[in-house]
Amino acid sequence: MHKSRLGALIIDCQTDDLQREAQFWSAAMGAASEAPEAQQNPRYVRLEGSAGEVPVLLQVVDHPSRVHLDIETDNIKAEVERLESIGAEVVERLERWTVMQAPSGHRFCVIGVGRPGFEEHANVWA
Amino acid sequence: MHKSRLGALIIDCQTDDLQREAQFWSAAMGAASEAPEAQQNPRYVRLEGSAGEVPVLLQVVDHPSRVHLDIETDNIKAEVERLESIGAEVVERLERWTVMQAPSGHRFCVIGVGRPGFEEHANVWA
Repeated sequence: MHKSRLGALIIDCQTDDLQREAQFWSAAMGAASEAPEAQQNPRYVRLEGSAGEVPVLLQVVDHPSRVHLDIETDNIKAEVERLESIGAEVVERLERWTVMQAPSGHRFCVIGVGRPGFEEHANVWA
Repeated sequence: MHKSRLGALIIDCQTDDLQREAQFWSAAMGAASEAPEAQQNPRYVRLEGSAGEVPVLLQVVDHPSRVHLDIETDNIKAEVERLESIGAEVVERLERWTVMQAPSGHRFCVIGVGRPGFEEHANVWA
């Protein structure tokens, strides 16, 4: 038995200035962006959303800009196998997450639990 | 004074079978998809998420598949002007929503209020 749910919404930015992109998205969504000095990794900025709301992050990428979803789970291996069984394909296995592609062509990532409320609200898979 | 917030997450699918794409995303996210006969418009499928969670919809599109965000507001005109003032551009004004492009290059839509809890949780703009 394992659990999963929508974990985050990632705004992938092909940019040389992530802070500039974050400034817009922060103002657009009325969400404070995490101060640069608080960031452990300069390739990411987290927008502080409302409690319980899906987290929105910005990420620097080398491919064209897009938006992707993360699915969070307490068992990445089992969740990747479940998603393969319903038609998704593994694109790349990284140390902390796995990149997959849906039958619809959209790429998404399977990540570890990172969002409050996972135990109560995640889907349970037998 | 008007209000806005993140309104929905749209999985744009360049597909000839939206039900097939919806079947995957519904299973992936553990969210029932709205039955086809309940749909007023066959170009959309709504996934039934948890209460309070941002709604996820699938949409048939003619352009390449992607994911985009909707910002919901009680005043589309004022919200579009606010977003223009922070750097977004209008791509297309439609009858019920406006398509905009962020400085980061991402397209998003400004739509009317459609999600429960708007009055309590939306951002207020003076």
